[in-house]
Amino acid sequence: MSQFTIPTPRPPDEALAGAIQAKIDAKTKPLGALGQLETLARQVALIQQTLTPTLRQPHVLVFAADHGIAAEGVSAYPADVTHQMVRNFAAGGAAINVFCRLYGLTLRVVDAGVRGSFADVPTVIDQKIAEGTRNFRHAPAMTAAECRQALAFGAALVDEIHRTGCNVVGFGEMGIGNTSSAAVLLHLLGGVPLARCVGRGTGLDEAGLARKQAVLAAAVAAHPTVDGTDALAVLATFGGFEIAQLCGALLRAAELGMVLLIDGFIGSAAALVAWRLVPAVLPYCIFSHESAEGGHPHLLRVLGVQPLLRLDLRLGEGTGCALAYPLVQAAVAFFTEMASFESAGVSQSELKVES
Amino acid sequence: MSQFTIPTPRPPDEALAGAIQAKIDAKTKPLGALGQLETLARQVALIQQTLTPTLRQPHVLVFAADHGIAAEGVSAYPADVTHQMVRNFAAGGAAINVFCRLYGLTLRVVDAGVRGSFADVPTVIDQKIAEGTRNFRHAPAMTAAECRQALAFGAALVDEIHRTGCNVVGFGEMGIGNTSSAAVLLHLLGGVPLARCVGRGTGLDEAGLARKQAVLAAAVAAHPTVDGTDALAVLATFGGFEIAQLCGALLRAAELGMVLLIDGFIGSAAALVAWRLVPAVLPYCIFSHESAEGGHPHLLRVLGVQPLLRLDLRLGEGTGCALAYPLVQAAVAFFTEMASFESAGVSQSELKVES
Repeated sequence: MSQFTIPTPRPPDEALAGAIQAKIDAKTKPLGALGQLETLARQVALIQQTLTPTLRQPHVLVFAADHGIAAEGVSAYPADVTHQMVRNFAAGGAAINVFCRLYGLTLRVVDAGVRGSFADVPTVIDQKIAEGTRNFRHAPAMTAAECRQALAFGAALVDEIHRTGCNVVGFGEMGIGNTSSAAVLLHLLGGVPLARCVGRGTGLDEAGLARKQAVLAAAVAAHPTVDGTDALAVLATFGGFEIAQLCGALLRAAELGMVLLIDGFIGSAAALVAWRLVPAVLPYCIFSHESAEGGHPHLLRVLGVQPLLRLDLRLGEGTGCALAYPLVQAAVAFFTEMASFESAGVSQSELKVES
Repeated sequence: MSQFTIPTPRPPDEALAGAIQAKIDAKTKPLGALGQLETLARQVALIQQTLTPTLRQPHVLVFAADHGIAAEGVSAYPADVTHQMVRNFAAGGAAINVFCRLYGLTLRVVDAGVRGSFADVPTVIDQKIAEGTRNFRHAPAMTAAECRQALAFGAALVDEIHRTGCNVVGFGEMGIGNTSSAAVLLHLLGGVPLARCVGRGTGLDEAGLARKQAVLAAAVAAHPTVDGTDALAVLATFGGFEIAQLCGALLRAAELGMVLLIDGFIGSAAALVAWRLVPAVLPYCIFSHESAEGGHPHLLRVLGVQPLLRLDLRLGEGTGCALAYPLVQAAVAFFTEMASFESAGVSQSELKVES
């Protein structure tokens, strides 16, 4: 794995853009009347470089890991919950299981670095880097080698699902403490004041939120040589194993020309790191939703992207990706199946005819 | 039909509300983390008066009709498009066809008062009141008897689909000129200044929008005795046959305890009339989306409701209902299928334990 090279997606060729828009505008509807679904259809068609896009073997990958920073009391839940929830995923009882079953998405659950063994749960994919990161209040969360290994593991799993024919994938996560990592990543890589990056996570009260902010301010101060100019160093110092695996997975999926569904605050933080490493990852990303977690709207603004859903979700697990998937299907379906004005014998806008 | 009585839904019994909330809060997720999906689950469970709600035989009903006011040049499209689009629905080529096929919704298309015959298209349900309404710039759009007939037709169709086992239904429409009707309904029944009620419809330019505003101001002035105190008179004077059939359909569906999916500006205007007739219709309504049509946000505010989607849609046809349906499925699915903390052996919030 020491030979692992960070994937380098290239931006989709824009040559088809005119033909894509013409196809949309010929559909039996007023110009632009399908709003964001039209933007989505353009994006998917450009990613796939075709006027007849299809979605095949959709997957959601959930990366789970523990965080040393959780020892500082930055979450409303005990750290054991990461392990317990991975078992819940494996047993089919979590929200992401329910939504994946409902919409026909294949769910794969990854131990990216959870404390405790899943040897008795063969459906959990073992990509464990270590039993959780170090507490970045006092030491870098991971070594450079661990970070690179995590990127490589994420990329390799995408290669595997791509070989099954999958061309659309959602990226979820689970990890008590990981909104703390994401907040610092946003602060350092997005240039957003720390106070705006820090939210309530799974449900901190006022005192808990104040404590989390103080802990994270101290953590940033403890690593004065790590700044936003080196995204990999920021990821290694303040990230999590699930965030790093997500980052590698995103970059490889974009390099393979897949459609990427990004979930909430954590998933978007991984996308932020990926974007700072290779900006061309962004045109492959669909931002599923704007989360209720405090920092997420700021993160989306840094990336300059528009989310599909705003449902006040703050669960993670890839639930937002799953909930957005039917809209992606709808975008592809109207683009490929709707009649044109000509084929249906419907008159076009008189305004258009006059102009 | 002269015996037709306006259906009188009763508000859902709230006695189950505590048990519903307790069931949601026991799920393996932070309290409130599924945001609007939790609100939706509560609503559906209350409508169905059960802790195990189900969605059966979902339908979308599209009511189409022509509008005399279209003669005043208030739309970017010629009035013939209503007829042409109904044929497009029947042939399966419109956006609503595509979305219904994608999500497994049964589509029924109704001629509520379109100019021209569909005798050669047996799948179009004949509930034609007349060949379009009168031009309400000069005369009431319909007579009181026509209005009552339209309400009755809408209600009867809901009875029919309810007998098939359907318990969830979306309400769409098609009618060149119908944003003009909806704008006046909102103005008079919602007390919103006319200028805020009038939007671009299928795509008016600045000059067209100004013309539409002037026409509608003159139309309101032409019927000085019709004001917001009599919702039925407002509906008959300024409504459309599709809007009146929608209104009757909504009221009957609520009376039958069905889950109602409301589409955009026109559908919400029908809901506004229904709500003014029988306020208890509202708890049965899910507002699918906030449309890009200018008056729609104001209408939603008058009703005091929160839409599910904001995708800048402005197509009508029930497309917003169809696009929201997978979210309703997700709400029911998490509520009925997700594991509880207890069943999954997951620790609850430490904050909660402490408090």
